[in-house]
Amino acid sequence: MRLVILGGVAAGTKAASRARRLDPEMEITVYQEEPEPSISECGLPYLLSGVVGKRENLIARTPEKFADKDIEVLVRHRVEGVDTASKKLSVRDLRTDETFDDTYDRLIVATGARAVLPPIPGVDLDGVFKLRFLTDTDEIGRYIEERSPRKATIVGGGYIGLEVAENLCRLGMEVSLIEGEDRVALAYGPEVSESVEAELEANGVGVYTGEMVDEFTGEGHVDGVKFGDRELETDLVIVGVGIRPNVELAAEAGVEIGVTEAIVVDRHMKTSVSDIWAAGDCVQTTNLVSGRPAWIPLGDTANQMGRVAGTNAATDDETLEFPGVLGTGIFKVFDLNVGKTGLSEKEAEEAGFEVVSAGLWANDRAAYYPGVQKVFLKLIADRATGRLLGAESAGSGADKLTDICATALWGRLSYPDLVNIDLAYAPPYGPALSPVIQAATILSGKFDRAREGVRAKE
Amino acid sequence: MRLVILGGVAAGTKAASRARRLDPEMEITVYQEEPEPSISECGLPYLLSGVVGKRENLIARTPEKFADKDIEVLVRHRVEGVDTASKKLSVRDLRTDETFDDTYDRLIVATGARAVLPPIPGVDLDGVFKLRFLTDTDEIGRYIEERSPRKATIVGGGYIGLEVAENLCRLGMEVSLIEGEDRVALAYGPEVSESVEAELEANGVGVYTGEMVDEFTGEGHVDGVKFGDRELETDLVIVGVGIRPNVELAAEAGVEIGVTEAIVVDRHMKTSVSDIWAAGDCVQTTNLVSGRPAWIPLGDTANQMGRVAGTNAATDDETLEFPGVLGTGIFKVFDLNVGKTGLSEKEAEEAGFEVVSAGLWANDRAAYYPGVQKVFLKLIADRATGRLLGAESAGSGADKLTDICATALWGRLSYPDLVNIDLAYAPPYGPALSPVIQAATILSGKFDRAREGVRAKE
Repeated sequence: MRLVILGGVAAGTKAASRARRLDPEMEITVYQEEPEPSISECGLPYLLSGVVGKRENLIARTPEKFADKDIEVLVRHRVEGVDTASKKLSVRDLRTDETFDDTYDRLIVATGARAVLPPIPGVDLDGVFKLRFLTDTDEIGRYIEERSPRKATIVGGGYIGLEVAENLCRLGMEVSLIEGEDRVALAYGPEVSESVEAELEANGVGVYTGEMVDEFTGEGHVDGVKFGDRELETDLVIVGVGIRPNVELAAEAGVEIGVTEAIVVDRHMKTSVSDIWAAGDCVQTTNLVSGRPAWIPLGDTANQMGRVAGTNAATDDETLEFPGVLGTGIFKVFDLNVGKTGLSEKEAEEAGFEVVSAGLWANDRAAYYPGVQKVFLKLIADRATGRLLGAESAGSGADKLTDICATALWGRLSYPDLVNIDLAYAPPYGPALSPVIQAATILSGKFDRAREGVRAKE
Repeated sequence: MRLVILGGVAAGTKAASRARRLDPEMEITVYQEEPEPSISECGLPYLLSGVVGKRENLIARTPEKFADKDIEVLVRHRVEGVDTASKKLSVRDLRTDETFDDTYDRLIVATGARAVLPPIPGVDLDGVFKLRFLTDTDEIGRYIEERSPRKATIVGGGYIGLEVAENLCRLGMEVSLIEGEDRVALAYGPEVSESVEAELEANGVGVYTGEMVDEFTGEGHVDGVKFGDRELETDLVIVGVGIRPNVELAAEAGVEIGVTEAIVVDRHMKTSVSDIWAAGDCVQTTNLVSGRPAWIPLGDTANQMGRVAGTNAATDDETLEFPGVLGTGIFKVFDLNVGKTGLSEKEAEEAGFEVVSAGLWANDRAAYYPGVQKVFLKLIADRATGRLLGAESAGSGADKLTDICATALWGRLSYPDLVNIDLAYAPPYGPALSPVIQAATILSGKFDRAREGVRAKE
């Protein structure tokens, strides 16, 4: 029995390890295009600045370590064709550029996603980078070492752009961030976007929203960026927009691709083609709040999907399920923590809900306890049923509040359920009533007011 | 319509404020024995050391502030009799020692709990204190100022004893802690107790477990403590054992008292006597995990109960419900965070569950992210159904893990539900898979092993 896995980052390596644990006999081969498998891609922005000291720290396991578990990991290999009828693979060894054939009994597609550079004039200049793989940080690192850029431009105000902005500032660069929409952190509501922009500006980042880059200028090396009627000098550009799932190979093999342009899988991570599973950043899943197809490429989710795909491929059964995601995410930008779960108000409205929400700024600990800081929390709920639809938070302890709300969404709780929830209180850890309880109580207050209306009429 | 509330700390003042908001016309009087209402009792250990700078910081609202909302708060008044037939109260003004009569239409009993000193010889010596009220910290503070104690003894290794130990150390005292059971933090499993004891010892606290105090010695002032075959010099003793609900008045009035010796209320905080509600540290509630009566006096719960009692008393209706508690708690001792929700393994077994558990030490952030620290998490579940029964955590981020698990318990999730839960991941906030997911996966692993057994037989 031969299991072949295409892709060796989070989902692929997890699937391989799971399959090996469940089946000590199975042949397992992982093909990986990049030179290292098992990369912690979420750590790349921190490698740029030296917050993560060594690139080795981001490699969870080398091919040798996998070999110890009898898992063959072939890096610098690209699978270029899948014949599902004969179960044959065409593989290119990128070191020699030679091709060879392989076969599989069961296949897991974990080809991930890639960053694409938008077709902006000058995007091919030296000094314009994307950031997706460890090799990207290698290139950026070399460029920084050779040319000591003083001014950097980030294109895109999503979480990668924001994390990179922080880390380039740490290197002493003067950083500008350009976002095409009218605010950064667009997956969040306007309160959070404002907080993020304020944090960027407080740390010296020039923030330009509602601006599309017209051109990168320079002779050989980038030396400027034009947008609107502005032109900024820049020695380095990192483009943090345009990530797409790598599905071309699967699509050519006849695997169904979904509305999100990622691979369709069922709850068992099975694709539309027999003996082919898929997992990670290349697959489409379900947003469990909206019930709609979702493509949310994140390392933790990829890991969870890989576990399910690896288990089910190893057992050739529907042993485990991956039900879907909530759309939970978090990032840090300078000293601001920003997290989200479920749907934003805008996303909830687009999904057809009639939305009620309550946002508040609360203390992160008892008001009298030293070091008290503020945290924003917004709860988003369905007016008709009270069901919690989402939450977003920014500030001290936003990670905790986000995870409480993610768990509440996972349990399909409503905001009235949260008014009396028994969370952990002591003065160093929060106000007596958690911001989650406070926000749920505000939402419930609408009920009180309705009731007061009834009383007034009596 | 006249509402009288007995007790003006967390539950009583919250009930008063809620009632006023819902009914602008109602007469509302709060009787409070202590000289200040609305005290943040959880902050008292931190006032001792000056971590909380001023006692005023622990007074959320003065009687004058309540008067602004047309709520009469009479401090230094003790209600000594309740005639439920005539709805009359006998009240003593403790400043003049005079008594007078009052009446009520609706009554809320929020008389709280008190610390009782165990009948140990020498417990009446000067320098032996309990810590429950702001007036206790006033007395301890005066004693410390006058006598500059160098050596302090804490009796009791529960969370109050532990918090006090930390705060007396901050004052430069040499602190010993004596616990009758064989470990501190008895509500937790042995791993957490060990961590707490190690943290105490690392900070210079002498920990004596399995020891009962035989005698406090001294002439007038305490100067020693005898236990087992030991005798320690001590200049100050704080006894952190023996908290009891204040229910004598309610019991005399015919209100039903429960097996926990606290007042029985229904889900609407109504007592067994008509027109009498109760809330806070004097009431018995339900542990929603075990389904059994529970008495867990905590400030946040008192606040939530007060909201329900105040609303229902104001509306004379079953407007709001308080379903019960999980037994969630948290404390900090030096740099160690310790939290719990639901049942410990021992408590779960006592409640009749067949218990499975998984404990692990995990990272509090990505292994490569600077400042990584360890955190312990144990999940406790029901073998038959997989239902989560409890969790306990110690270390960095224990508050977050406790609250995630509390929310999972609140939603009655099982451990298989938690394997794929979509929590917030980025390198500064946790490992790629939360310790909650890791522990749930370990529990699920038993399933895999069972399955492997089946495969081996095939």
